[in-house]
Amino acid sequence: MSDAPIESIKRLAANARLGYSLEQPFYTSDAVFEADMDHVISQKWIMAGHVSCIPNRGDYFLYKIGGEQIIIIRENTESIRAFFNVCRHRGSTLCSAQSGNMPKLVCPYHAWTYELDGRLLAARLMPQDFDKAENSLFACHIREFHGLIFINMCEGSPPDFDATFGDMGAILDYHGIADARIAHAASYPTAANWKLVVENFFECYHCVPSHPEFCSMHAADSLVAVGAGPSSGPADALITFAPKLKAWEAQARALGRPIGTIDEPPESSHLRLLMQRMNKDGYAAETQDGTAPAPLMGKRNSPDGGRMHLSFSPFSQIVADDHFVILFLFTPRGAMQSDVEMIWLVDGRAGADQVDVDKMIWGYHATTMQDKKITEDNQAGIRSSRYRPGRYSDQEGSVIKFQNWYLAQLGL
Amino acid sequence: MSDAPIESIKRLAANARLGYSLEQPFYTSDAVFEADMDHVISQKWIMAGHVSCIPNRGDYFLYKIGGEQIIIIRENTESIRAFFNVCRHRGSTLCSAQSGNMPKLVCPYHAWTYELDGRLLAARLMPQDFDKAENSLFACHIREFHGLIFINMCEGSPPDFDATFGDMGAILDYHGIADARIAHAASYPTAANWKLVVENFFECYHCVPSHPEFCSMHAADSLVAVGAGPSSGPADALITFAPKLKAWEAQARALGRPIGTIDEPPESSHLRLLMQRMNKDGYAAETQDGTAPAPLMGKRNSPDGGRMHLSFSPFSQIVADDHFVILFLFTPRGAMQSDVEMIWLVDGRAGADQVDVDKMIWGYHATTMQDKKITEDNQAGIRSSRYRPGRYSDQEGSVIKFQNWYLAQLGL
Amino acid sequence: MSDAPIESIKRLAANARLGYSLEQPFYTSDAVFEADMDHVISQKWIMAGHVSCIPNRGDYFLYKIGGEQIIIIRENTESIRAFFNVCRHRGSTLCSAQSGNMPKLVCPYHAWTYELDGRLLAARLMPQDFDKAENSLFACHIREFHGLIFINMCEGSPPDFDATFGDMGAILDYHGIADARIAHAASYPTAANWKLVVENFFECYHCVPSHPEFCSMHAADSLVAVGAGPSSGPADALITFAPKLKAWEAQARALGRPIGTIDEPPESSHLRLLMQRMNKDGYAAETQDGTAPAPLMGKRNSPDGGRMHLSFSPFSQIVADDHFVILFLFTPRGAMQSDVEMIWLVDGRAGADQVDVDKMIWGYHATTMQDKKITEDNQAGIRSSRYRPGRYSDQEGSVIKFQNWYLAQLGL
Repeated sequence: MSDAPIESIKRLAANARLGYSLEQPFYTSDAVFEADMDHVISQKWIMAGHVSCIPNRGDYFLYKIGGEQIIIIRENTESIRAFFNVCRHRGSTLCSAQSGNMPKLVCPYHAWTYELDGRLLAARLMPQDFDKAENSLFACHIREFHGLIFINMCEGSPPDFDATFGDMGAILDYHGIADARIAHAASYPTAANWKLVVENFFECYHCVPSHPEFCSMHAADSLVAVGAGPSSGPADALITFAPKLKAWEAQARALGRPIGTIDEPPESSHLRLLMQRMNKDGYAAETQDGTAPAPLMGKRNSPDGGRMHLSFSPFSQIVADDHFVILFLFTPRGAMQSDVEMIWLVDGRAGADQVDVDKMIWGYHATTMQDKKITEDNQAGIRSSRYRPGRYSDQEGSVIKFQNWYLAQLGL
Repeated sequence: MSDAPIESIKRLAANARLGYSLEQPFYTSDAVFEADMDHVISQKWIMAGHVSCIPNRGDYFLYKIGGEQIIIIRENTESIRAFFNVCRHRGSTLCSAQSGNMPKLVCPYHAWTYELDGRLLAARLMPQDFDKAENSLFACHIREFHGLIFINMCEGSPPDFDATFGDMGAILDYHGIADARIAHAASYPTAANWKLVVENFFECYHCVPSHPEFCSMHAADSLVAVGAGPSSGPADALITFAPKLKAWEAQARALGRPIGTIDEPPESSHLRLLMQRMNKDGYAAETQDGTAPAPLMGKRNSPDGGRMHLSFSPFSQIVADDHFVILFLFTPRGAMQSDVEMIWLVDGRAGADQVDVDKMIWGYHATTMQDKKITEDNQAGIRSSRYRPGRYSDQEGSVIKFQNWYLAQLGL
Repeated sequence: MSDAPIESIKRLAANARLGYSLEQPFYTSDAVFEADMDHVISQKWIMAGHVSCIPNRGDYFLYKIGGEQIIIIRENTESIRAFFNVCRHRGSTLCSAQSGNMPKLVCPYHAWTYELDGRLLAARLMPQDFDKAENSLFACHIREFHGLIFINMCEGSPPDFDATFGDMGAILDYHGIADARIAHAASYPTAANWKLVVENFFECYHCVPSHPEFCSMHAADSLVAVGAGPSSGPADALITFAPKLKAWEAQARALGRPIGTIDEPPESSHLRLLMQRMNKDGYAAETQDGTAPAPLMGKRNSPDGGRMHLSFSPFSQIVADDHFVILFLFTPRGAMQSDVEMIWLVDGRAGADQVDVDKMIWGYHATTMQDKKITEDNQAGIRSSRYRPGRYSDQEGSVIKFQNWYLAQLGL
């Protein structure tokens, strides 16, 4: 169905069976990926990085998503900008290095020169009726929020950022994310459709078979009950877990942590999620021996023993404990190719000698390498003529919710 | 014609000119390859290997054909099974290694566990109305026949195996194939459509220009007359050759060899072929110096001086003399990609020190490397806009028959 | 629009906006590339090399263009021939090496043997009604012209060669191209549509930003005024430059150089161009220090201080000064892949010790490496959903003319 128009995709989506994985084309077809780009990916606010990458005027990096390249560049101390990496003259890319500094955006082909706000400043020898004002770079919507950079590629008006994410500010502030510094970053390109990457992240049913390191850092009952979000586990597991969670919440609130969960329904624009819970007994941090690899982060005066999963959208995730934060960037690149980028943040005041990077990345580096393998194997199996949508378990509730949200984005 | 439906393929096929090579799309088009998968490849019993690869319970190997992966696994001493490599839960592959041992088929993603007969044994935390009995692995038809493993991927009932191949049992038994052991195996992946691989194998018109080693091991008159099957050569060459052949047949029959030929018409389901003839004078075996590289095989008490070509179908060939057997597996992988796998068998009782592998493979390794090159060059030329179906020679009768059989499979 | 038929391409072409770059599909689509092959590339006389590559009977080289391979082979001292590299039997390529010598064209598959004029000489064991006379190789139109080899792939009659190019003979003769020898050759495969390669070559608006070496060898006013052809610059620059040019022309004419310009309109079949002008002051040749890297070429008794750009068509360019000639072969290979081949010629009488190859190639090797990069960046940017046709400058007049010519080829 490589040339299936949106109507036939909608028909296929309308026939999706609740509680089952999606039909093959949703994971393999170029036409579905194009529809995903138009109707889902380009419509959402997507986390593209941390502001500390571009401290000075003209600092930029490229964020590549689908077939697009977005230049994210600092205009001045107050403002960052995002532009499609396409010159208005003959379409050349303006930047070819992954990151760098451009005092002006000068096209290397014919030297058309743009101000960092995208306005065309200079174009030699143009016809008299040429209007520079009509030849600004195509801007991409961008917002900085507590040090996190979000872009939105839609051509019209994107969802209001503050109305969508404003209530998450307090918890980001508590973690000191705006002033954090990057201690480590790594890429895990994954030969699988972006929905398989997200589905993998949105359930902990696979944790026991696939993730020994991860499971060693977490209490088994918490993984079953809320391993992939506030309501992701079986009903009875949730009931058993609730009183323990309540007790920790009271204690953490007393220490100043903003308490609360977010668990948006499939009808929401971004399917946001916020789940906070206590660490495994005896673990101060998500490390091999449970000891902290870095100083306390943000507003904390003392550890509150908590672990947070915050999802801005299926594309943009945060995992954090008292001592470090991990940004997960899930970036669709093609029907069967996704980028997975992880950025480890520590407190902005932490010196290099105060951070044990190897200790900090031990668990999630291993886990993400495993997720890359199982997600790629999942994609490989789905390509068979005998793949059939399969039934989800009671521990995959968040995946079902994600799929309903996804299908709703296609206009169903 | 990448999206040509079966109807336009049939129209093209209906216009095929008898005695000429096929039109370009039959060798290059993805749409034709899909039709080949559905209407030909998936409908046939295809040799996938020798049973000695999987002696113990749980031993398995993957057979990859088209876009499919088939797990071939030993259930117990009496039974082997074949399954599509797709978990019924979310579609992950169950096995990613090419071969190994699995006491149960456990999906590495979420640990759904299948018995070696395909039944789902365990799936944690599933909804109450989930029925394990409805979630067995998708089986692939499989038959062991004198130590050879055949699969059939059709969704319904495949052609009756014994009715199709039963009459070949006596000759396989004479060669001792059930108890043979693998002395060597090698892969010759070929960037060409499977029909070009088959057409190459089904004629000896190219032997003199292309295969010096092969020709050195065979009498010229036998290659012309019956080099690619009982009736593959020009009429006059067949007439000259017939009395010599008859004389050898009488002698071989006296020594216990089952004598007879098979030369199925294009209307048959598998286009089977059995051609037995005498070695070149002075040659005991198909080797460089004509001496035997291994002990006598099977039921023989003394050499009968014969050489056999047995074809189960265009995909599955055997070449054998008194001392070794070669299985040829021609496996379609894509419109312009095929696998060619060769497995050399020797008598099961032959010790390692009784087999000279280098001597044994000398002729056919060189020949298959040459065939890979000429078949890939054939594919390369066919991609030109100036390729036109060309006339076959009188020594390519088996190719014409193969093409008629192929076109018949498309429902013509 | 991967399957857009010619009608939808024509509709898109009809909507092209004069003075703007083309819509995205013209640079990215497989369907447009197919249309380009049929309606443009196959209809034109295209320079494929220099005759000195194949001095002896049976010498050949392959010229690969689009999906085609053309064998260019010397038949005898008077004649060279071109054939599609496809055997009339089963379509195998006849030659797989890039160049070599074939006393006869013998197919390596089944030994069908062709005379160097394409006639089938021998085909063993063919049916009685087989007619060798109907099985000659498919010829490709070919012409040698002053040592340059041109091919035309059309199935019917190509444009008359002499009527098209005859008037260029005098200048080629003056440069001694027929008797020149190849001093150096290099390939610059470029991941971009052929039209981007041509557009890059047909304007000097990018010279200042992109080509420091090139600009160092040329006077700035000449680059602006006529850098990409007689009328390629802004009107006022042309007016200023005209008297200087006239003065040089008079001087060069007196030394025997054929003077004149060619600047064909978009309605012409090949959009030919001939621009001759003086070197930069103080430069005898296009080298780093302006000194000559080789002896005078051709008919010259003394240097005339001139520099020539001659374009047979958008695919086939010559740049020459008094001491060396560069052939530029721009060869389309796929929607986003082109070959760029450069062949440096020196006077046929020049000994190896008289030619400083490094000095000779310094400027244009650097320039073409730069063009490869900027053309590939141009292609990369055009793939964005935000690419829009952009306005051309007053220094890109030849590009606009090229586009009008291109659109006319599609039947508009």
